[in-house]
Amino acid sequence: MKIALGLEYDGGKFCGWQSQSGGCGVQDHLEAALAQMAGHTVRVAAAGRTDTGVHALMQVVHFDTEAVRPENAWVRGVNAFLPTAVRVLWAREVDAEFHARFSAERRSYQYWLQTSPVAPAILHGRAGWYHRELDLEAMRQAAALLVGEHDFSAFRAAECQAKSPIKQLTRAEISRHGQFILFEFSASAFLHHMVRNLVGSLVYVGRGEHPPRWMGDLLHQKDRTRAAPTFAPDGLYLSGVHYDAKWGLPVCERGLELRV
Amino acid sequence: MKIALGLEYDGGKFCGWQSQSGGCGVQDHLEAALAQMAGHTVRVAAAGRTDTGVHALMQVVHFDTEAVRPENAWVRGVNAFLPTAVRVLWAREVDAEFHARFSAERRSYQYWLQTSPVAPAILHGRAGWYHRELDLEAMRQAAALLVGEHDFSAFRAAECQAKSPIKQLTRAEISRHGQFILFEFSASAFLHHMVRNLVGSLVYVGRGEHPPRWMGDLLHQKDRTRAAPTFAPDGLYLSGVHYDAKWGLPVCERGLELRV
Repeated sequence: MKIALGLEYDGGKFCGWQSQSGGCGVQDHLEAALAQMAGHTVRVAAAGRTDTGVHALMQVVHFDTEAVRPENAWVRGVNAFLPTAVRVLWAREVDAEFHARFSAERRSYQYWLQTSPVAPAILHGRAGWYHRELDLEAMRQAAALLVGEHDFSAFRAAECQAKSPIKQLTRAEISRHGQFILFEFSASAFLHHMVRNLVGSLVYVGRGEHPPRWMGDLLHQKDRTRAAPTFAPDGLYLSGVHYDAKWGLPVCERGLELRV
Repeated sequence: MKIALGLEYDGGKFCGWQSQSGGCGVQDHLEAALAQMAGHTVRVAAAGRTDTGVHALMQVVHFDTEAVRPENAWVRGVNAFLPTAVRVLWAREVDAEFHARFSAERRSYQYWLQTSPVAPAILHGRAGWYHRELDLEAMRQAAALLVGEHDFSAFRAAECQAKSPIKQLTRAEISRHGQFILFEFSASAFLHHMVRNLVGSLVYVGRGEHPPRWMGDLLHQKDRTRAAPTFAPDGLYLSGVHYDAKWGLPVCERGLELRV
């Protein structure tokens, strides 16, 4: 039988989602905990592979098992075997055709950036930081140019393994919450480092280094070296994965709100 | 000359505010960093001594120094010598009569409690947790009984060194923010563990263990053993210290907002 899980994790406590030889990936911890509950080796597939330091408010994974357990065993039981920095939020038996990655129609990310003269202490590692105010209106104009189907090669890491750099970005919104600026992106799929690279270039626009139309130039030039450096992972959260209603999953969207 | 500082720190990274022989108190780190900037030994006095795991959005301290430095040296310069989990937010030269503890007229605390079937992963250590919904209205009625001048012996830790258990509580408000419940308290001063003991008893009321008027009974009985156990420090934040305007300090009040 096939089980889907919704997960929350603190990316600062792991070396990314993906399994590593040292066992420090979120996947390593989850597979070990699931094996204890299932009584056999378990392999999981995730909707999105997050990097070291990147958090998940809602990661969705699936696995196959022969073990028959109540859904709550895959939540409370598995949580008892997991480090506190990762929690199973829900479990749901799904159709054999479901695949956490290939059935996903859209992913959403939040990036929380604190703009203040002094860096965050309490939210260190949970919010990005820029030492002065940014021009919200200029960043919004720049972000609007990103929406739609584009070749995002300018925002793609060299190590990216995606078959195509062409993605459909359906949302690129920016809002202010006290000292924080929130960036929200939704897309069919994201290239490796794409959100952090977009935030880096938007911050360049926000500090007046380039006009908003520079974002359009970057898209057309398709040249990673012309865009801004990759921004810190600290404020980045995988916040949702959208699936067709036919799979019968719980709501797979979860927002964080911060304000100081 | 006398300097006042505003501080933010993540209480989970230190063994409380107060200096310890092992050097793990926030005070130890701050005094070491100030000594590097001042070129002489520095002793600081704080508005409130927070326990291990208790955070400060705004702690106020003062120290005496012979070193003449621009105010920014006491902020950016000292921050360069501090661990990232503690930050100096501002520095201000103050009158020789000022005392961070004795000049303070009122302290404010926030307690953030997540109510959800599964414990927080990302905000682990930054929010308290209760596994099910609580009756907000019952807790509000109970909290209203706390406002005013009372003998808070029922909520006082055995180790408390305060001269008197009688304190003036000026604010006890409870509000819901998505999955979070926020408790806000202001008082002339707080007894040792007082906020965590109040939250513990309010949670008992919120889960229907006792009616709201039980809070009044606890105040009258003055018996710590009849009240609820001390709640976890995780969600507790020292959020403000109020001083008379004559001291010319910046705003010493700072709120955090969380929502998932």
